[in-house]
Amino acid sequence: MTTSPLFKTVCFVGIGLIGSSLARAMRKHGLAERLLCLDVCEKARTTALALSVVDSATGNAAEAISEADLIVLGAPVGATQAVGEAIGPHLKPGAIVTDVGSVKLAVIRDLTPYLPEGVEFVPGHPIAGTEHSGPESGFAELFEGRWQILTPLPGCDQKAVDKVAELWRRVGSQVEIMDPHHHDKVLAITSHLPHLIAYTIVGTANDLEGHMQQEVIKFSASGFRDFTRIAASDPIMWRDVFLNNREAVLEVLQRFTEDLTALQRSIRWGEGEVLQKRFTETRAIRRAIIDAKQA
Amino acid sequence: MTTSPLFKTVCFVGIGLIGSSLARAMRKHGLAERLLCLDVCEKARTTALALSVVDSATGNAAEAISEADLIVLGAPVGATQAVGEAIGPHLKPGAIVTDVGSVKLAVIRDLTPYLPEGVEFVPGHPIAGTEHSGPESGFAELFEGRWQILTPLPGCDQKAVDKVAELWRRVGSQVEIMDPHHHDKVLAITSHLPHLIAYTIVGTANDLEGHMQQEVIKFSASGFRDFTRIAASDPIMWRDVFLNNREAVLEVLQRFTEDLTALQRSIRWGEGEVLQKRFTETRAIRRAIIDAKQA
Repeated sequence: MTTSPLFKTVCFVGIGLIGSSLARAMRKHGLAERLLCLDVCEKARTTALALSVVDSATGNAAEAISEADLIVLGAPVGATQAVGEAIGPHLKPGAIVTDVGSVKLAVIRDLTPYLPEGVEFVPGHPIAGTEHSGPESGFAELFEGRWQILTPLPGCDQKAVDKVAELWRRVGSQVEIMDPHHHDKVLAITSHLPHLIAYTIVGTANDLEGHMQQEVIKFSASGFRDFTRIAASDPIMWRDVFLNNREAVLEVLQRFTEDLTALQRSIRWGEGEVLQKRFTETRAIRRAIIDAKQA
Repeated sequence: MTTSPLFKTVCFVGIGLIGSSLARAMRKHGLAERLLCLDVCEKARTTALALSVVDSATGNAAEAISEADLIVLGAPVGATQAVGEAIGPHLKPGAIVTDVGSVKLAVIRDLTPYLPEGVEFVPGHPIAGTEHSGPESGFAELFEGRWQILTPLPGCDQKAVDKVAELWRRVGSQVEIMDPHHHDKVLAITSHLPHLIAYTIVGTANDLEGHMQQEVIKFSASGFRDFTRIAASDPIMWRDVFLNNREAVLEVLQRFTEDLTALQRSIRWGEGEVLQKRFTETRAIRRAIIDAKQA
């Protein structure tokens, strides 16, 4: 079945793991006529071009943006204001802007002031990724069977939302519409806290004296290893996530710390029944995840 | 190549994931003439027999132990004293006892008083496992390419150590000799702390109101999911690990909590450079694990 392209010209602003995966998927499924990228990093532009992820790559915003019908922001969320400032004046009327940032309120706050009349913004977040970064790490199948969350604002043109939702469906995702505030709270638990904890424990191990550290690496298969994969994620992306979802992260971190302190106390005082009860309860969540086919 | 059996009669005391995997591997590689199991749990005995994991299963210690040349303890480490009391009187001279417990000092402390003269004890810990429990979850390949740590005590017969080491090599493991005290410190970091943290974060999510919990399950692929696998491990086994490696776990937990508190403070005060530096350092450990072929 051949389908007509959903968009004529698409511009990826920041061509990393996610942007380059979406570009590859759009090409694979014939969803755009032309794929451009705007990236401040020359190496990323050269790589994206060399791998034919995009048809054209530039560091010049006017050139990249002025003809784009869809603009996909894939830069770290801390760069949103700078990106808005750079692209805002060149957006053409009728263009749709979307993003793939892991936090939504901060991106909406930082980008909206730069968007001219007649341009629609449909914030988004694909629940997909790997611990690798850069355009060379992307692949067209990354979004297949995964969730795509969209957090459109009241007053946004429904046709723009539908079109962005259709794009994600065509690359294999299931689309969920959510309030941006709620998104940031849910992701603080499912994603931001797990990453913070993984970074912490790997950091704790990294601070050990050399001899001990070698053994931690050698015997990492006993649990530690799983955390190191998460803690190998892009440092700048994650710095920006924590700085831009501060309240939700600190709140859930507070809950976590209380729970950890309670378990610590049970270990200290030998409260075996408390430990066993707690460790049994957690199995239900694993079963629910398996049942939801997310395992 | 056919090899002569290393042992005549082997008895597994506690036939769960690890015991049944070793039994299957020993059968596959022809390492024993007869495989028995002693387990207090009737269901485990029935399953092990039905799956032909062992040739004979009983709840009677005298029957199971009196002819065994090798006894492999695979019960939760908290049961070690009871196991010692049950099997001690029936151990035959020249028998070798080994175990697969995740902590070593406590097992040595609890078992040694029950071992008669002429019986050698070679404590061990295979760095292998899955989140599944019970004899039905075992498989013969579990130990292939994994580490087996042995922590023999001073004065132990070297021939017994060599024989147990040879057994693990024949089922595919690499053997490492270690001091038991050092083992417990290393494993507190690589295994016990990661499990405690995974149990905690999954518990924190489990305490959320129903609506929020459903969404955590739905969007668990964003990081949380990896923790739920670890937190689905056997509750009784892990209760016993924490109660029996208390000092080492509490010490490393203290380091972890300090590091987490420091990151929390950096998030609160917007210290982006501190976060970025910390998140960059952790990538080195991941690379080292990949280089060590433990990823």
